[in-house]
Amino acid sequence: MLWIWKDLGEVAGLDKKLGVIVTDDADSLFAETYADVVIHIACTYLHEVYPQIIKPIQRGMNVISATEELGNPYASDPGLAAKLEKLAKKHGVTVLGSGLSPGFTSDYLILALTGACSELRKISYKRLSDLSAYLGGTVGRHFGLGLSPEEFKKGVEEGGIIGHIGFVESAQTIADRLGWQLDEIKRSMEPVHNDKGQFVSTRTVVQGIRDGEVKIELVLEAFVDPEMETMDRIIIDGVPPIDMVIKPVISSVPATANALVNAIPHVINAEPGLMTPGDLPLVFALENDLRLFLK
Amino acid sequence: MLWIWKDLGEVAGLDKKLGVIVTDDADSLFAETYADVVIHIACTYLHEVYPQIIKPIQRGMNVISATEELGNPYASDPGLAAKLEKLAKKHGVTVLGSGLSPGFTSDYLILALTGACSELRKISYKRLSDLSAYLGGTVGRHFGLGLSPEEFKKGVEEGGIIGHIGFVESAQTIADRLGWQLDEIKRSMEPVHNDKGQFVSTRTVVQGIRDGEVKIELVLEAFVDPEMETMDRIIIDGVPPIDMVIKPVISSVPATANALVNAIPHVINAEPGLMTPGDLPLVFALENDLRLFLK
Repeated sequence: MLWIWKDLGEVAGLDKKLGVIVTDDADSLFAETYADVVIHIACTYLHEVYPQIIKPIQRGMNVISATEELGNPYASDPGLAAKLEKLAKKHGVTVLGSGLSPGFTSDYLILALTGACSELRKISYKRLSDLSAYLGGTVGRHFGLGLSPEEFKKGVEEGGIIGHIGFVESAQTIADRLGWQLDEIKRSMEPVHNDKGQFVSTRTVVQGIRDGEVKIELVLEAFVDPEMETMDRIIIDGVPPIDMVIKPVISSVPATANALVNAIPHVINAEPGLMTPGDLPLVFALENDLRLFLK
Repeated sequence: MLWIWKDLGEVAGLDKKLGVIVTDDADSLFAETYADVVIHIACTYLHEVYPQIIKPIQRGMNVISATEELGNPYASDPGLAAKLEKLAKKHGVTVLGSGLSPGFTSDYLILALTGACSELRKISYKRLSDLSAYLGGTVGRHFGLGLSPEEFKKGVEEGGIIGHIGFVESAQTIADRLGWQLDEIKRSMEPVHNDKGQFVSTRTVVQGIRDGEVKIELVLEAFVDPEMETMDRIIIDGVPPIDMVIKPVISSVPATANALVNAIPHVINAEPGLMTPGDLPLVFALENDLRLFLK
């Protein structure tokens, strides 16, 4: 192997080697190695990751990515999605975007709960999450955490503050499976400040609308207060009604990693092309040898 | 058609016809009609329903049944399960046992939640349910609702009081998917009386045990008190931990019917043989034309 590599333990600043090779030379990696599937965690937007993921695809490797827009690329970037789908089919591989949201709480779990329902009227999801740990980092900047109203406004204008990306994709995945022809998917993102002008939270809201009625509503309140109660709540207004609460909130980092890894056999088994979390079979923790689940 | 039939509206004592034909002559029905799938709701035990469901199977019809032991027939009646599986494969059909429990809360939903997890240590499910509406009926008799300690004891001895059947099947389905080799599945069923000897609830507990450790615990508290709080609670002790509460409890009758109906395209698509709720793909409410989901 000609490419430079380090041990993951070294890169992570640990005292010991972990036996996992890390490299920053993706071209050489994909040229010299083969895998059934590549787990990809990088950026948010499809146009950013497109040049990255076509490399393993062109080598015939399936891809599972945490890229939010890949949660339903036809909802976010139809042109690039069609191009990606064509390429995946040409090389006989499957591409799935998944994670916690999109991928689990805001689409997959909602659809799973509707499995006990009929006569659905409305679906609501709300996540109340404390992002104190992300203050100062990339996530903190994306949410404008801790900023004054003026700073927040400036950050939005300059494009650095984007809120949660992925709900548009989740709403489309839910609508696709339920056969709801939405007229519009509306998205808003705004800060909440208290009456002293202090930052409370960043609220991202996505609404799937049909005939003037909100059929799907997905909300994230991202606040900076480790004392506040956190939760994931899904309300299915149907027969029977279901009001589900997970308290505290499902921890995003391990859940994202697990959603990607636990999907591996199902992505390997799937038909070539793009798939969304709504196309998955029942995904469970891979405590078992994953090869048992390969067709 | 030679067999006697009535309109469902007539049988249900309504003033109007519903356009749904009802008959008590299953032999003639299955001899003279064909369907892709038969939804079967009758009894609890496999040996009771075996003679009923082999009729549609022999005519090449898939079967989705609410029979609790069919939720994982190899866990409850391995001999009859093997016979049934052979017959299903011979006739190229699929047989699924599903419903609310087994079928949804006590196995399918648990497995779906583990999809965001790794390093599972223990899985717990508890349903607190008010069965006041069933007092005096078949369900009420099965649970010994309202009985004194002596009456309850007698009912158990005579075999009429059985508690909830289906948790053994659910525990096996969870263990199968997670690859947990259980040493034993223990089941207990007992009444709870207050200190005045008044009936409070019937508690059914199933434990899946490995190396002396309870890995799976499924509990139903069936009480007779419309004022008491009801809930379904699933606790996944893993990474991340998940503590899920659905309050009030998912209503059993509509949820059972929906779990059966929403599985239709997935059962038609499945390979011939027996399947458990753990073998299903993502099951969602069939708001859409179900034919869209047929392969």
